[in-house]
Formats: sequence, C-alpha cells, structure tokens
Amino acid sequence: MSSRKKMVGFASLQNVNKSLEILNTHLTKIEIKTEKVPIHNSCGRIASKDIKATNNIPPFNRSAVEGYAVISLDTNGATPTNASELEIVGTAEAGVEPKDIPKVSKRKTVEIYTGAPIPTGSDAVVMVEYTKRKGDFVLIHNPVTPWKNISKKGEDFPKGKTIIYKGTRIKPWHIGTLASMNIQSAPVYRKLKIGILSTGNEIRELGEKVKPGEIINSSRPMLRSLVEERHCLPIDLGNVPDEEEKILEKLLISLTKCDIIITTGGTSLGMKDLIPEIIGKAGTPGLLVHGVAMRPAKPTGFGVIGKKPIFMLSGYPVSALIGFEVFVDTAINTILGIPEEPKVMIKGKLTRKLATHIGSKSFIRVKIIRENNGYIIEPLRLTGSGLLSSITKANGILEVDEDIEGYDKGDEVNVRVLQSPDITV
Amino acid sequence: MSSRKKMVGFASLQNVNKSLEILNTHLTKIEIKTEKVPIHNSCGRIASKDIKATNNIPPFNRSAVEGYAVISLDTNGATPTNASELEIVGTAEAGVEPKDIPKVSKRKTVEIYTGAPIPTGSDAVVMVEYTKRKGDFVLIHNPVTPWKNISKKGEDFPKGKTIIYKGTRIKPWHIGTLASMNIQSAPVYRKLKIGILSTGNEIRELGEKVKPGEIINSSRPMLRSLVEERHCLPIDLGNVPDEEEKILEKLLISLTKCDIIITTGGTSLGMKDLIPEIIGKAGTPGLLVHGVAMRPAKPTGFGVIGKKPIFMLSGYPVSALIGFEVFVDTAINTILGIPEEPKVMIKGKLTRKLATHIGSKSFIRVKIIRENNGYIIEPLRLTGSGLLSSITKANGILEVDEDIEGYDKGDEVNVRVLQSPDITV
Repeated sequence: MSSRKKMVGFASLQNVNKSLEILNTHLTKIEIKTEKVPIHNSCGRIASKDIKATNNIPPFNRSAVEGYAVISLDTNGATPTNASELEIVGTAEAGVEPKDIPKVSKRKTVEIYTGAPIPTGSDAVVMVEYTKRKGDFVLIHNPVTPWKNISKKGEDFPKGKTIIYKGTRIKPWHIGTLASMNIQSAPVYRKLKIGILSTGNEIRELGEKVKPGEIINSSRPMLRSLVEERHCLPIDLGNVPDEEEKILEKLLISLTKCDIIITTGGTSLGMKDLIPEIIGKAGTPGLLVHGVAMRPAKPTGFGVIGKKPIFMLSGYPVSALIGFEVFVDTAINTILGIPEEPKVMIKGKLTRKLATHIGSKSFIRVKIIRENNGYIIEPLRLTGSGLLSSITKANGILEVDEDIEGYDKGDEVNVRVLQSPDITV
Repeated sequence: MSSRKKMVGFASLQNVNKSLEILNTHLTKIEIKTEKVPIHNSCGRIASKDIKATNNIPPFNRSAVEGYAVISLDTNGATPTNASELEIVGTAEAGVEPKDIPKVSKRKTVEIYTGAPIPTGSDAVVMVEYTKRKGDFVLIHNPVTPWKNISKKGEDFPKGKTIIYKGTRIKPWHIGTLASMNIQSAPVYRKLKIGILSTGNEIRELGEKVKPGEIINSSRPMLRSLVEERHCLPIDLGNVPDEEEKILEKLLISLTKCDIIITTGGTSLGMKDLIPEIIGKAGTPGLLVHGVAMRPAKPTGFGVIGKKPIFMLSGYPVSALIGFEVFVDTAINTILGIPEEPKVMIKGKLTRKLATHIGSKSFIRVKIIRENNGYIIEPLRLTGSGLLSSITKANGILEVDEDIEGYDKGDEVNVRVLQSPDITV
C-alpha cells in the first residue's frame, strides 16, 4: 500500500456553521468572468450587472383596453340613462403609426383597440363595456377621468431605468421584459466549472462489467446532476484508484480548469484516507476542515488551493448529497455573490419521538404524508448514510440543529421537500 | 377588417376552480408515449413506469466502516482497560473479490476498509476508533453485536424491489441509485410539445426593426422559457396577424404536431377577438371557457380540439404568466398524471390593508422584505396586467380566493416566492 496511516478517529469535529464561516472567509475574493448569452438561454443564470431599459416601455401612449378614445371632459356626468353621445370619426388599430391615427376633437371619438396609439387630442379611453353603438355614434354610459385606460409612454419602464439588478437569477418574466426592449442577449456570470472526481479501487464506471467485490460509481452521476440543477457546468474527472501520486497529479491538472473540485471517497479516517493529505500537499492554504459535526456526512471536509475550493465528500451517496447541499451550494453562492436559494418547506406534526445527537447537526430523512388538511411527518427508520433507499424512500429532510436533542411525538417541524408528498416513495 | 363583432363585455365569467374542472374533464384520457433516456439526461423527467432493482444493493456483505472484521463473540466484555487482543491475519480491501479475502477464525481478525467484502467467518466489524494496534495484534476496546457495521447484501435494495415508482419526478439521487445498479437509461414520458403562437398586427420579432406604433413580442419568449422550466418542449409557432383564415390555418397545422397549444393576444372581448371564434371552428368539443373570474388574466380561456387543449392567454405578459401557471401547468400535470409541483412559500405580515374583489380570484404581486427574524409583505401599488414592472419589481405573489374581500394591515399571509427576498427588485 502506498500510504499507511495509523487508524485513528477524528480528533475533533468542526461545527457546521464554523466550517461554513471558514469556507466563506477563503472564497469572498473570487471574481468570475461574465459572458453575454441569448436571452432565451439566460433562464436561471445570474445577471452580472444591472441591466437598464434601452427604450421607454410602452414606447408610446397606448390604450390598455378596447373602446373609445375620448376627451374626458366630454364624458362628464354620463350615466346609462343620460348618455354622452359622441360621433365616431375613425378607428385606431394596434400596429398603426401614431401619425396615421385619426385625431379626436370635442364631441368626437375614435374607436380604439387594445395596444393602439392614443389619438392626438384624446386624454382617456372608455371601455367598450360602458358604451352602446348607434351607427356612426356611440353612447357613453360612464364618465372617465383624464388618463383613464391609457398606458403612458415609459410608465412601465422609463428609458435608462434599471430593470434587472446585478445578482438577480433571471426568470421567464425577465426574458419577456428584455424582449419587449428588443434586448437580444443578457450579461451573466459564466457557468462555474465544477470538477467531480471519485476515488476508489473498487469503483467501476456506468456500463462497465463488474467483478464480485466491485461496485458501480453512483455518487459521480448524482453530483453531476446536482451541479447541473445549480446552473453550473459539471466536469467529469473520472475515477482514480487509491494511489497518492495519481490522485495528486489529477488534482493539480484539474485545478487549472475548474473553479471548484469535488472529490468523493477516501475521506473517512482510516488506512486509506489519502485525500486530506493530498490537499495539504497540493498547495496553500491547503486543508481547512476535515470532519464536520453533522450526521450523516461527518467525514466531509474541504481545503482551498489558491482561491479554489476542493471539497471532500463521502463515497456514500447520501452523505455526498448532504455534503453537497451544505458546502458546495454555499461555495457556489459565495463565489457568485448571490443569496441562498429559497427552498420548498412543509410544516407538519411528527408521528413519533425523534432523538438526535447533541453537538451534531442532523439531517433526518422523513416521509411527508397528507392528513386531513395538513401534513404529518414520519422520520424514516433507515438512517445509514450508505443506504440510497434512505433518500429514495424519503420525500423530505428535517434539519435538526446541534443544540437540540430531538423532538416529541406531535411536535410541529418544518421540513424541506424533496418530492411532492403525492408521489409514491 | 376581416372580422367585425359588436363590442360587448364578457357575458359571464367562469370561476377558476370550475374552469379547471372543465379542463381536467377533457384531458384525463390522454396517453403520452414513453422513451428511454440516458440517466444523466433524466433529471426532472417523469418516470413512465415502476423501475425495479436489477441487482442486490449492496451486491455483497460489505463493511460500512474502517476497522477490524471479527467474530462478535470474541469481543464480549471488551473495555479499554480489559481489551480483547486479536491476531491480525490479513487485510480486506475494497475492490478485491470476496473469494480472495482472508478468512477470520476464532481470536483472529482481518483489518478491513470501508466498502470491502466481509471475510468468511466474520460477523461484525469493530470501528478503528475503538481499537489500538500492537504490531500484528490489535486491542479491541468495545464489544460489537452480530452484524454491527456490516451493510448486508440487498439491505438497501433487494433485487426486484421497486426503486422508482411510475409518476416520480427523477431527482439526482435517483440517478445515483440507477447508476449503482448499472442501469444506463430510464423510461420516462416523452417531453410534451407545447406550441406557442402569438397574434397581433403590431407585433414584431426580437431583433427586428420596429416602426412607431409597433412593439416587440415579449410573451412568446417568456412562455418558451416557462415551458422549458416545466421540462416540456416549446415549439415556437411564430406570430400571425389578426386575420381569421391565417390563424385558423396555423392552428390546424399546429394541432398535428403539438400536445398543447398556447395562443396569446386576441382574447379580450372586442372588435378583434378572433381566437375564441376560431377555436369554435377548428373542431370539437371546441371552445370551453372564455373569461375567467380572476385578476389579472380575466380574458383567459381555452378550448379542446380532439384531445388537445388550446389555451388563449392574454397578450399582456403578466396576465399570460398567471394564465400559464393556473391553466397550462394544470394541463401538463393532468396529461402526465402527476401532482402539482410543491411551491416555495413564505409567511409574513401585510404592511398595509389590501382590498380585493369578491367573486374574482386575485393574484397580488408583492414585495417580501426581511424584517427581524421574519418577513413583511408589501403589496405593490402597480397592478396593471400590461406592466411587466409589476412582476419584475415583485418577488412574490399572494393568491386571494374569490370569497375573500381582502386583508387588514398586519394580517399574516402565505406568499409564493418568485425570487429570493435578498435580491434587489
């Protein structure tokens, strides 16, 4: 064996929040390049600067309704029994240039479509619902005040106004807004490149034949998918056997092409705990945390080389998932300068007493079950971090802070939703 | 003009829930084809049948920890001051075939790595933390019970057991689970094809030059992005001017290649309300709902031709967004036979009194603001459905049912989150 360490337990575990603080201290200064992407590819990406209105929206005064463009004074005192009768002198259609729209003068009106420019002379539009047509005349049954039913030029966005602030996650309605100004591309941070490396002699790749004693890598495909869900770019670094030189070499090459590296396996303290040692050798500041007071995912750790974080996640997929959500997510947010994404939560009452370990933050996998008009929360009996079924049979995760020793049956808890409670798990 | 209708208001508005009921009645029988996709492309897709374990996971009894494989009886009564001393007769590494792992017999032990096959003869593993090495011997400080620290063959998933139920939205951990069984592709429903058609003479395309009086289409890019967020396939049907024959022709062709069609524009009652009439002419059962008791998005409607729904959304992007979320989302879920996706909600107290209209369901755009350890909810003053800023300046939507006439200042409300409250809007 290339590395033979004394088998010892973790000397001490670092608290989750303290670990995150250490991580953030080393990441705050990273600057990420920006790029312009076509707006239809920008959904979910992060705006890298304030985007300002290049036009007035609406670009001209236009009608918000269908009806009749009038001089508001001509409708004063109008009622269904004492209607104002106005002469229709033309039509204003959407898409017609304002200069080609007929003018409105006293006691005259122009029938108008939604979105059409307001005729010169008119200062309000009466909705069609409050009118009655009589040949070339129309009876107005309700008075309108000045500017009624008119969308004023620039009232939505005046030219020069910020429409999307730096750091905004672009949503479909932002794309609509950009389109309305004929803005074809959006400035966004380029996708963070996240390298994913697994280690282990027993690991085979998806599709490969496995001999007895070997297993197919499950963490790397899972992590790849988690990275994509975060709108980052996964870089598959493959699997490396438990050999120090090979892992170090792979890590050093990968640091040149990735913003973040995730390793799996080789992190629990034991004879083959190579990764923590290798991170120490790869550069400075090196290893920062190894062993976190959390269950599962205790063997999680990380270091920073230059300004790039390297995360050591467990080879166990459930621990790797929790480690990713706690640490890698934070790194992504810190590097991009964005807040944590709000999560889907459901409140419900516990079906049984739940004991957790003081001093460790617990991530309890639970089943959220509809009952009457609310929910009940059943902590799963399966807890092994090696058990994928402990997460596929769950539809929620209950986080229990390290200073809480559990809950009683019937206590209300707030649970993060992994899957709709109406889907069989 | 090709179609000249009398200008009238909506005769009556259909209630939101009743409208959804009518929609679902006409959609329940649709069958969607399935396809196999590589597992790394399956995230977010819907499993089209139960997927069963093709192997036992773990495929063999293996160690869950690093330590020493023992006969549990040999550790009876062990304490730090009265250790059991066992002779180390070999090593069990991960990746080695079970037949090549040394055997354990009475008072003997094999040092073992996480993931390694359990040696024949051994029935438990002592964690390294509870041992002390002395040359070729090891001192065991704690007793273990049978099967302690062993992951039994099939304990995670026994071969043949369902691992993902039909209708599940595939998540990263499912991909990990499938990978662990060497399953390379997943059966999913093919993506629903959703055609998006805008209408209007004044509409120009993104990138085109606009003359005064014309506007760039903003709803179609927004809807395309909404469709993609739902893991469906948007089919851009372009823009058609307000001409009955052209719209009908486009609709009939599109019905042959789309599962759902969305039209925007031409739906509010007025001179150019072509779409409802055209849907009536396109086939049976035809137009089902036109005019819904909701604000915004009152002019929303839909019909069904054969078994395919055609949605008429407002030309105003905010109304189109609300119409999409209420009706198109429901159609997608009903066609695929899946429950509504759980949404991110935040509770907070209203900063001011809010009056809504009895008889109409209201979708109030709000600003969620952090305050102390909670949130306050400020309803925006901007309410025009034509105002994109009413949604870009909001970070939440408060739904108020039609039988509620509003809330008082300080009332606690539950708001759907559109964007993190920590991002400037």
